[in-house]
Formats: sequence, structure tokens, C-alpha cells
Amino acid sequence: MKLKLEITATDGLARTGVVSTARGSFATPVFMPVGTRGAIRSLSTHELAGLRTAEGSRAEILLANTYHLMLRPGAETVAALGGLHRFSGFTGHMLTDSGGYQVFSLGPKVTAEGARFKSTYDGTSYMLTPEGAVKTQELLGADMQMVLDVCAPLPSSESVLRDAVETTAAWAARARLAHRRTHDQALLGIVQGGDNIMLRRESAQRTVELDFDAYAVGGLSVGETRERMLPALQSALAELPVDQPRYLMGVGDPLSILEAVSLGVDMFDCVLPTRLARHGTLLTDSGRLNIKRAEFARSEDPVDPNCPCATCANYSRGLLRHLSCLGETTAHTLCTIHNLTWILGFVDQIRRAIANGKLEEFRSQVTPVWSTMGPGLGE
Amino acid sequence: MKLKLEITATDGLARTGVVSTARGSFATPVFMPVGTRGAIRSLSTHELAGLRTAEGSRAEILLANTYHLMLRPGAETVAALGGLHRFSGFTGHMLTDSGGYQVFSLGPKVTAEGARFKSTYDGTSYMLTPEGAVKTQELLGADMQMVLDVCAPLPSSESVLRDAVETTAAWAARARLAHRRTHDQALLGIVQGGDNIMLRRESAQRTVELDFDAYAVGGLSVGETRERMLPALQSALAELPVDQPRYLMGVGDPLSILEAVSLGVDMFDCVLPTRLARHGTLLTDSGRLNIKRAEFARSEDPVDPNCPCATCANYSRGLLRHLSCLGETTAHTLCTIHNLTWILGFVDQIRRAIANGKLEEFRSQVTPVWSTMGPGLGE
Repeated sequence: MKLKLEITATDGLARTGVVSTARGSFATPVFMPVGTRGAIRSLSTHELAGLRTAEGSRAEILLANTYHLMLRPGAETVAALGGLHRFSGFTGHMLTDSGGYQVFSLGPKVTAEGARFKSTYDGTSYMLTPEGAVKTQELLGADMQMVLDVCAPLPSSESVLRDAVETTAAWAARARLAHRRTHDQALLGIVQGGDNIMLRRESAQRTVELDFDAYAVGGLSVGETRERMLPALQSALAELPVDQPRYLMGVGDPLSILEAVSLGVDMFDCVLPTRLARHGTLLTDSGRLNIKRAEFARSEDPVDPNCPCATCANYSRGLLRHLSCLGETTAHTLCTIHNLTWILGFVDQIRRAIANGKLEEFRSQVTPVWSTMGPGLGE
Repeated sequence: MKLKLEITATDGLARTGVVSTARGSFATPVFMPVGTRGAIRSLSTHELAGLRTAEGSRAEILLANTYHLMLRPGAETVAALGGLHRFSGFTGHMLTDSGGYQVFSLGPKVTAEGARFKSTYDGTSYMLTPEGAVKTQELLGADMQMVLDVCAPLPSSESVLRDAVETTAAWAARARLAHRRTHDQALLGIVQGGDNIMLRRESAQRTVELDFDAYAVGGLSVGETRERMLPALQSALAELPVDQPRYLMGVGDPLSILEAVSLGVDMFDCVLPTRLARHGTLLTDSGRLNIKRAEFARSEDPVDPNCPCATCANYSRGLLRHLSCLGETTAHTLCTIHNLTWILGFVDQIRRAIANGKLEEFRSQVTPVWSTMGPGLGE
């Protein structure tokens, strides 16, 4: 099912609009929280569904990790339980990655056929192929699935990056042929090429030739600086169709989102808001706030008096510090509620800025706050 | 502030009614969830406040543990943060224990003055006195506070039980004198005496002589069987004023609640529903259900299709098993939501049975389901 982006406003290369899917539609730019094992860590799905930003928007898309779900409880089990939506209890859109990102972090044995790896759960050996990744994700049944790609670390030599592009292209063609669940599921191709401008362009062209339902840029935010990341991203984006959504994988620090939107990216996912939450780091309009700091012990203030989230509505910084310092999982939940609400609201502001032609103004306002936080928090 | 119970119906010795407090009122019998450190473990307070049983009732009283709060973040800090209600974010009734239960589990050095113990947080030495416990709980600011008592383990020799009764009586008199926050806080006396019928009667009489705002029975559910527990309980209850609420401390297995209600108890607290939840054990009308069992891997059914809780409304047994087996804290949260809703609903049924004069019928229905679960899960 091809994903079309109906653009409602542009500001430079940035665009805001609506993507139609078999399930309904979602507004872009969009941030997708990561529900690793079918649920966001420390946050139940019904609480995720209840999150609202100041503008009233919610989490439209939940990402789930194929690597984890194919091993526990297994894709067949998720299918037997009615697919990922019924399994997770999330009624919005869902997207699954291919599992490749986690598999490659394990140093698998890669052949033309696929990647052989050992499960981090029990050491069992598995073979992940492009066809297998498609089939697994069809069983999981998200609205969007990703092709299996090869993600090279950065820095890597040109030959390593070239090999990753070639294997990614060969696997993408096989995935495209293998995809059967086309009536209600979109298959997204992935551009690789590391930080090499020419390889990014070539990879994008070869991916577009395969005519995917939408396109993603992978293999960024893997150790490089934002200054290395953005030209490579720009080079890829220039080759992608204007009227289909573009997804920058695994990038979710505020400034990288903003810079990538400025180059024409529409979709983001990242564990940053949820992982930071579990460490007691809160996202605010003034930057990061470590709730464990002693100065908050007797603070009756909420994290942000203007934030509409349940955490800011009900609890003081003092209570959050208390529970965080004790490692109570309730603290993780409360910080996760706030951080997701904050980043969804941040993307609300980006959409509004584009609609009003004021993205540059918003960027100059936000850049000083977030420039010290780099990209790069994959999971 | 004296607590009065307005009895609306009785069935044998069992009674149902309404207790008026400075904050408002609550219906009895009542089950009080335990918010150890100012929050229920694995459940945020706003979710607790949102729990509703099939009959529409909610958690009316939240218990908090003085031992934990006096050490972290400290009673002065809780007071500086506006007291326990503002600290926890709970707007219903709150009750604090004296801290004695935890202190005595640490094997303190007990003198006439008080109990000297080492903090489990950092090893610091503390002295807990009857006056100190009152003062600490005044700072915490719950609606109800408990005197410091001496809780002997069971079995204990008669001389040990006698000593506990004597010290408890002496400390109760000092606590009664020390209590200053009488305008908005009730002070509850505690009956001791172990499983000794005569000592229970004597302890109850001596406690009532001190004219407390209400009365509790402590030192039960500490290792003895239900058959040992109930006669001792009955002996104590016979001496307590009919028109004030009676609280059986730390007892919360369904059958013990039911048996104790039948003897005239009104208030209960226990970590049982929340602790079982964190181990994946769910309470249902058919008994305990271990959600980790392999048979639930592909079960699309909710835990209980008739349960109104968010867990049963949104998630399958298969999903709960998956998250529980992985140790995801979200599983603890979801199981806690269900178990608390179940036990609150169980107490709803008890209130209704008393009102309808059908407690015996309810008891014969419930006893076979719960007879294998003994009392005894302190925290």
C-alpha cells in the first residue's frame, strides 16, 4: 500500500501534511515512540494512548522492534494473538523495523543470503534474510514495515560503506518481491551510504527504482556528529519522491529533528525520550533537567507548569526526585509520560512553525537550548 | 479527631457503614492499598485514583509507610512539600503506620524509651520513640496515624507476648499525650497480645481506656494460621467500642478479610495484591492465576472478561504473559491495576452482602476458592 503525503504547507525544504494509510491518516512531521517489545518501556499502552499535548495531539504511531518480538514471544505467537495492534492494545498506527539494526549490533555472520546471529535471549542461532524479515513483519502486522538493510557503523571505510549499499540494494529487491501483505501494509525501502555524499545519492536512486511504498534513511546517528550527518541526509533526500513520506531512522534529539525537518524529513523514531526518562532526565523547553539533583528535594513546583501531562498536573519535582533516587519504577513511568508529551509537543510546534512560515524563527529560538545534545541513541 | 462509624447495616457481628473524617467520609469495610514510599509500587497515584470497580467504587484510603518516609525523603521534607497528600498526589484519605512494624523486623535494641535501629538505606542509627512516631506522622500529615507498638513474632512465649503488651500500653499512653495534631488527624491505638486470648482482651481493654480516635488490632498475620489468628482477633474485638472503626493491620488475603469482617472488622491493608502482581500472580473470582504459565502464551482472552479494569479492557493474557516473562515493569503495573481493582471489588461484594443479610451465603461461595491462601504478607 503506497503511502502518499498530501502536503499542506512548506517552508523551504520543510513540509507539513497528512499521510493516508489503510488505517486512517497521520499528520507530519511525526515522532514515533519506541515500544520495544510491544509496549513502551515503563509505560502501559493505555497511558500512551491517553497522552495529549497542549495542542491536543497524541502519539499517532508506535514503533515496535522486530528483533525482540521475533524472539519473544515470536512472530507466529503475535499473529495468533491477533497481530501487533491487538497484542499491544494500541489502536493507532504501528511500524516495525526489520530487526537488522539489533542484529548488526551483535556482529552477525553476513552472507549474500542474509545475516546469521545468536539470540541475546538464549544463544540460539538464527538466520535473518530479506524474505524472512518481510514474512516476520507480515505476521506482526504493523501498518508499516521496513526492509532488511545493512547498517555500517561510522566511521567506516568507503569500501565497507560501498558493500553495505550493494547488499542493501540486493536485499531490498528481494524484499520488494517477497512482500505479499500489500493491501494493508506499506513496505519502506531504506537508503544507506554512511556519511558518503555520493553513496547516499546512489543508494537513494537505487532504492527509489524499486518503487517502495515510502522511503527511510538509515545508518545515520550511529556515532557521527550532526555536522557529518546532515549533508549525507540531504544528499539522500534530494533523490526521494516529494509526495511520499521520508523517515529518518533512530534520530530523535530535538535539534536533529529540527534540522532534518528543515531538509524535508517527515518521520522520526528514537528511544531518547523514554531512555532519558528512566535515568531521571527530563526534557523541558529550557533543556534537560536531571530530576535527581539535590536542589529539587523540596521543590513543590511541577517539572513544567505549562505542561499538560499527568506528571506535571499531579506531582512535584520533590516527589519525582524522591522516587527517582530510590529507583522506583513509578518514577520511570512518570518521567516517560512527561518526556513523550514534551517531544510530541515539540513536533507540534514544528508543524505549526512550518504552516506559519516561521521555521527559521523557531530554529533560532531552539538551537541554543539543544545544540549540546548530539544525535545517536539507537536501541 | 475521633472517628465515628455510622453503621448502616449489620449481619451477625459484621457491619457496614460510613466513617466520617476531617477530609470527608469513607464506606466500610474498606481495603487500603499500600503506597510504601508515598506511591504504590509499580503504580502511579493518578492511575490509582482512576481505578473503578464494577460498582463504581474506588480506592478510598492509601496507606504509606512511616519507616520508609522518615528515612527517605524524611518527614520534614514531606512536610515542606505540603504533606503526604500533596507529596503523593493522592486526594483521598491517607493513613500512616508508625514505622514500628519495619523497625521490629530489623531486630532493634528495645528499651523503655523506644527502639534503636539501623537504617536499611545507609546503616545510620536511629531511635524511634512513641513521641517521635507521633511527631513524625504529624509531619507526614495523613488523616490517620498509628501509635508505636511492639509487635511480637508468632509463635512467642507468654512472657514475650506479655512484655509486648506492657510496652505497647506504656507507649500508647505516651503517644496519646504527645499527639497535638488533633483537629484534622486521628490517632489509632493498637491492640497486641499475640495469639493469647487473655492478653488480647487485656490489651484491648487497656487501649480503650486511653480513649483513642479509633482502634487497630496488630501483631496478627505474622506467621500463625488463620485458625490461630481468628480467636485472638475475636477476643480483642469484643472489647472495642462498637461505634468506632476497627482496623486489622497487615491482613489482606480474601478469606481472612471475609472472616475478620464476620467478626466485626472494618478496615484492612495489605501488600498482597500489589506484591503478587509483581510476581505475575493475578486475583480472580476463581482464585489465583499465574500469568506466566505457558498455556497463556496464545490466549487472546483478558484475565477476566467481566472486570472493568484497564488491564482487562485492553490486554490479552498472552500480552501479559509475554511482558511478565520478560520482567518488563509494565507487566507489574498492569497486574497491579487488575489486582487492586479485584480486591476493591471483593470488598464491594462484602459490603453488599452485609447490607442484604447474605454474608454467610457469600462466605460459603468464596471459602472454597481462597481457603488454601493463608494470611501473612507484611511489608
